[in-house]
Amino acid sequence: MSNVLPTIDHVPGFRVAGVHAGLKKDGALDMTLIVSDTPCVAAGVFTTNHMKAAPVLFDMEQLQYNDTHMRAVIVNTKCANACTGEQGLANARQMARLTAAELGCGEDEVLVMSTGVIGSQLPMEKIAHGIKLSAQSLGGDWAAAARGIMTTDTRPKSAAITVTMAGGQTYHIAGISKGAGMIAPNMATMLSVVVTDAVLPGDTARALLQSVTAQTFNRIVVDGDMSTNDTLLLLANGQSGAALQTPDDFTQFHDALSAVCRKLAQDIVRDGEGVTKFITLTVSGTASDVSAQQIANTIATSPLVKTAFFGNDANWGRIVAAAGRAGVPLDPQHIELYITPGEVEGQTAESLLLFTAGMPTAYSEAAATAIFKNPSVSIYLRCGDASGVATIWTCDLSHDYVSINGDYRS
Amino acid sequence: MSNVLPTIDHVPGFRVAGVHAGLKKDGALDMTLIVSDTPCVAAGVFTTNHMKAAPVLFDMEQLQYNDTHMRAVIVNTKCANACTGEQGLANARQMARLTAAELGCGEDEVLVMSTGVIGSQLPMEKIAHGIKLSAQSLGGDWAAAARGIMTTDTRPKSAAITVTMAGGQTYHIAGISKGAGMIAPNMATMLSVVVTDAVLPGDTARALLQSVTAQTFNRIVVDGDMSTNDTLLLLANGQSGAALQTPDDFTQFHDALSAVCRKLAQDIVRDGEGVTKFITLTVSGTASDVSAQQIANTIATSPLVKTAFFGNDANWGRIVAAAGRAGVPLDPQHIELYITPGEVEGQTAESLLLFTAGMPTAYSEAAATAIFKNPSVSIYLRCGDASGVATIWTCDLSHDYVSINGDYRS
Repeated sequence: MSNVLPTIDHVPGFRVAGVHAGLKKDGALDMTLIVSDTPCVAAGVFTTNHMKAAPVLFDMEQLQYNDTHMRAVIVNTKCANACTGEQGLANARQMARLTAAELGCGEDEVLVMSTGVIGSQLPMEKIAHGIKLSAQSLGGDWAAAARGIMTTDTRPKSAAITVTMAGGQTYHIAGISKGAGMIAPNMATMLSVVVTDAVLPGDTARALLQSVTAQTFNRIVVDGDMSTNDTLLLLANGQSGAALQTPDDFTQFHDALSAVCRKLAQDIVRDGEGVTKFITLTVSGTASDVSAQQIANTIATSPLVKTAFFGNDANWGRIVAAAGRAGVPLDPQHIELYITPGEVEGQTAESLLLFTAGMPTAYSEAAATAIFKNPSVSIYLRCGDASGVATIWTCDLSHDYVSINGDYRS
Repeated sequence: MSNVLPTIDHVPGFRVAGVHAGLKKDGALDMTLIVSDTPCVAAGVFTTNHMKAAPVLFDMEQLQYNDTHMRAVIVNTKCANACTGEQGLANARQMARLTAAELGCGEDEVLVMSTGVIGSQLPMEKIAHGIKLSAQSLGGDWAAAARGIMTTDTRPKSAAITVTMAGGQTYHIAGISKGAGMIAPNMATMLSVVVTDAVLPGDTARALLQSVTAQTFNRIVVDGDMSTNDTLLLLANGQSGAALQTPDDFTQFHDALSAVCRKLAQDIVRDGEGVTKFITLTVSGTASDVSAQQIANTIATSPLVKTAFFGNDANWGRIVAAAGRAGVPLDPQHIELYITPGEVEGQTAESLLLFTAGMPTAYSEAAATAIFKNPSVSIYLRCGDASGVATIWTCDLSHDYVSINGDYRS
């Protein structure tokens, strides 16, 4: 398997466009269309928030009836079409209908994504214009497609990988994502589309996507808030003719998809609002992986821990105190806390032990601070000898985060 | 029942002292001793954090063997005696032993509280000096006692109430607390001692305290972090001779204790780190009170919601989005969101409806902002017609919070 590349060259059978439909005031690209020339196996993972946006509800329904011959995904920015009632649902359906008309496919073959302000209706005239424009501009410009879904992101996010199977056949997996902008008034945040030309059985696409999501997109924490629009879509058009058959084939695809999604997910954290530090947090030794993730999430969402990260403060006390309130039984005597520069899952020769047997070690404060001054820091909390383990990627809580999200909307 | 007063005049049979033992560099009071001339019924509520500090473990054990003849509580600041291992437990016991020696009571009749830096051992020489000093200074200076437990608090916190029973007998309830400082390196935060001269049966003291705590101290959210030292103690010496007998007597005592604890708890929020806004948040219409509190806690710990509060931003979208991810089934169609100036549990004629039937109302942004510019704002989220309800008190997340907690420890 090749390495994950930060840019997308070409995925056979897929054409894309990123256009300016007039939604963004500054003339930036604000709509993206992704089209497959042939029907796709499709799967989606959606926010579990009970306040689901109209496009989320629309896509969930679409995929219930059609997950084997999807053709396109149309995305708009600036308006999340969330908290918009019946009108919002009608507009989401209209977006699919207009796109289908342009592409000459059925409206049941189009999925819809929206991101932006919550609580206002879609400007359907501009949306219609953008759909027409993007249908006319379809081609290979994935960079434009990645920019066309950005909101408060400071840079586009994309990832691609080429996989050569045991039999020598080759297929591609590529994706774009936009993220961690929950800027005032309130952005509905995470969107990602991943496409592949591998031949993927419909029934396994969903299972694969869910399994991968649990290890990637569900392992990132910026501020712990969950948006009304979070959506991840997978489209597989089979153009490569590379058919997954043996268990090894599926494992290989799973790992490749996971690599692409991990890159897209981590980029969302790196580009999070006000983020100055990328944290790789691993918790191990718990009774189950779920317990490990529960502890990791509690640490990663603690304002005290996150502000300490911002302050380059190797504040082991806040980390163990957060772990202690995660709702998972812990024996302080069996806890070990290591910090390591860079992105490491666990400990290395470079690791510094801060806490063990219920007490801090006689570590050098200067050495700890030196580690925390790196843009990437890894934290490893060992809770015992059991087999539970989880790694999540998170960030600090900075003045800029407060400024970005505290500024009044107008 | 009289009103809750912000200062404590006198509680018969109790003597207190707040002294400078040399723990704080600036000469401020840093230790407090509270003594009853006669044995007290005692109850305690402690942090559920699995990383419990030594004084918490010590007090929990003390109260297991003696909850009917407690005599004193000794409190030190600057050092939390948390994450200090066997030595820490020995030091907590020694604090009780030294205090008992000064007072001429048994070491099993003394409870211990510590607050301050986690991970360092108590400076026992200074502690011993402070115990001697405070035993010599015992008197009626509750103001000094309230100051003697302060850490990063900007002002002392106390509350007192006088209750006249149906039969004409009178008793007092008074308490002091210190709070929301989790400043670097990491303070172990909430401590409170409440005393009364009412005659309280031992077996009911704990039940009453737990019931009241659930409605007061457990209803405040500053940053969602839970310390290793949180402790609330109740001492009842019975000096008033006012014995609780009828159900009405217990209800009256419960309400009075609740009023005192509510004041002490709310003062902790008002004096929270970097707090610029006091929020009274009420959630109703859920299947149970627990569900209502679950939603309220999710809203109150959302960084997006808290930064919007800081920005005087009536950001209904973030509030309903946080409610939507609280893990409680919600139907957006049945949600109503009101904001009201001041401290109100629910809605009034002054309330402004921001959201209803799954969509925002056509409210005036200027009117909403005007409400949010008040130092106290109330938020009422109605989720339906069911009977579940909960009110919590919380605050905003400001630049000062990040500064206070982000600054490097040294």
